[in-house]
Amino acid sequence: MNKSINLKNRPSGKPILEDFKFEDIETPEAAEGQLLLKTLYVSVDPYLRGRMRDEKSYIPPFKVGEPLESMVVAEVTESKNENFKKGDFVSGMLKWKKIQISDGKGLNKIDRNLAPLSAYLGVLGLTGITAYLGLEKIGKLKEGEHLLVSGAAGAVGSVVGQIGKIKSCKVTGIAGTDEKIETLKEKYGFDSGINYKKTGNIKSAIAEACALGVDVYFDNVGGEILDAAMASMNKYGRVINCGAISIYNAEEQPTGPRLETVLIKKSISMQGFTVRDYAEDFPDAIKQLAQWLKEGKLKYEETVVEGFEKIPQAFLDLFEGKNKGKMVVKVN
Amino acid sequence: MNKSINLKNRPSGKPILEDFKFEDIETPEAAEGQLLLKTLYVSVDPYLRGRMRDEKSYIPPFKVGEPLESMVVAEVTESKNENFKKGDFVSGMLKWKKIQISDGKGLNKIDRNLAPLSAYLGVLGLTGITAYLGLEKIGKLKEGEHLLVSGAAGAVGSVVGQIGKIKSCKVTGIAGTDEKIETLKEKYGFDSGINYKKTGNIKSAIAEACALGVDVYFDNVGGEILDAAMASMNKYGRVINCGAISIYNAEEQPTGPRLETVLIKKSISMQGFTVRDYAEDFPDAIKQLAQWLKEGKLKYEETVVEGFEKIPQAFLDLFEGKNKGKMVVKVN
Repeated sequence: MNKSINLKNRPSGKPILEDFKFEDIETPEAAEGQLLLKTLYVSVDPYLRGRMRDEKSYIPPFKVGEPLESMVVAEVTESKNENFKKGDFVSGMLKWKKIQISDGKGLNKIDRNLAPLSAYLGVLGLTGITAYLGLEKIGKLKEGEHLLVSGAAGAVGSVVGQIGKIKSCKVTGIAGTDEKIETLKEKYGFDSGINYKKTGNIKSAIAEACALGVDVYFDNVGGEILDAAMASMNKYGRVINCGAISIYNAEEQPTGPRLETVLIKKSISMQGFTVRDYAEDFPDAIKQLAQWLKEGKLKYEETVVEGFEKIPQAFLDLFEGKNKGKMVVKVN
Repeated sequence: MNKSINLKNRPSGKPILEDFKFEDIETPEAAEGQLLLKTLYVSVDPYLRGRMRDEKSYIPPFKVGEPLESMVVAEVTESKNENFKKGDFVSGMLKWKKIQISDGKGLNKIDRNLAPLSAYLGVLGLTGITAYLGLEKIGKLKEGEHLLVSGAAGAVGSVVGQIGKIKSCKVTGIAGTDEKIETLKEKYGFDSGINYKKTGNIKSAIAEACALGVDVYFDNVGGEILDAAMASMNKYGRVINCGAISIYNAEEQPTGPRLETVLIKKSISMQGFTVRDYAEDFPDAIKQLAQWLKEGKLKYEETVVEGFEKIPQAFLDLFEGKNKGKMVVKVN
């Protein structure tokens, strides 16, 4: 039986399981030009929270009563499209359905010999590409600089830090458990880590870890950690505003210290970064990331949850920091 | 008798006349390699408030008990330096003294035939250069875009708007009196103006004046006007954080709505801009500005206050918006 996961209602504050609804749906048939896809892996990501709101953003909001979607790795089980054949593996923005049809647009064929399929949702997928292009396009990271990254044990953050090390930078990561900090240092080679949940004063912890100041801050969390990082930014520092998970669930406009004075005093730039703006650079990014992966310079971690029915819970767990590295759901 | 104006104490909140002290000082004599300068025009600027604080910034703070300094136009009355001769006019960062010596470093010779001397403190000085390079280097203003500028009737703002028109953009200015708004439209050719003191809702006033959104916001004021502008920024919008006069006098860290979410959603960049960072581009900037001035494409306004003893009051008046265009003090 085919199934979909629909948005039942728009969450108020933190999403809950009751905001999702499983529905039995018909198994579609592929018409001429179409292909039938079997979902294998589903990516759950913090930014999806934004699409649950009814507001203008870089992608349209999810509709109540309709299936959600995210990056998915799927197998082509039938093809009436000349660009794909049965047995191909693809990744793309697809519905949360067990089986679905597609016209092939926006799908990328992926090579399971280069890396495991789930890696195409992480280190070779949008999260890895986000880390790479954020640093390239906005961070303009230079050898010897000090790179600070929040959400450092997450899918994006862990790649950000490793690229920092590949580029001979000092790298400090911020995360929320001692175990994660240990992983950053032992597995990913970060120079230092800050457990923000245990640090009495995050501002002085950053100042201490980055004694010569921060040149590039890759921000995945926003809020008070961003404020604290701003205090340590060097002249000409660059802030990549990639995510703001700490305030995604806020129902009222969150407030904080005004940043305009520090921006001016230190000629700092802050730039909102959405990887989709750089689609033309994806092939180069994947090529470079795959190369580093092959050379053993890039490690990654996944939290793999099994079962189609676990997708909503896996998404909710992101906001509790339960994942290490990329959170994916294995469906089949 | 020679005189200097010293910082008596660091202001708390808004500066007052009592924060300054006039002192009778000796008239210096030029040694070998030095020149004697007679102050003709003194520039007073909002950013000087920052230097009155005892904190790290892009230029060191003023010292209590010592003369303040700013951009000054002076006449060389005696020269023992081969690069200058008696009768030359120069501009540079000089002390608030009637007569002073200099070793010539950092002084620019200026041509009174190209423009009146005081213009070298304004449209051909740091303020004009700030407008030009802020738009070039950070705004990357393109034909047909909508440019919004705050402090629009000020020395920087009025040049910003005119450059916008020269570059075939739509230009909206924000200022604080109906008379200023009239000047923006009639004299400088702005498309529209907003009197923020009379507008009940600055956010909707901006949204109305910039119906297709704002592509570049040149911010001279910070605070709530910046917040309001952010709501109208277009995707890929650029904010030039040039000044924050609305919060310069705040004694406590001002707070406001967090901007990270809107930065991310619309791929907006905000960048602190300090014209001194681009010193190597000054000659080109002055050349272009002088060309536009000659062609009648660039108009400017000055508020000229007369008398060396009026310098502190002229500075204080900036925070009351009493100037139209560049505020300068004519000393001799």
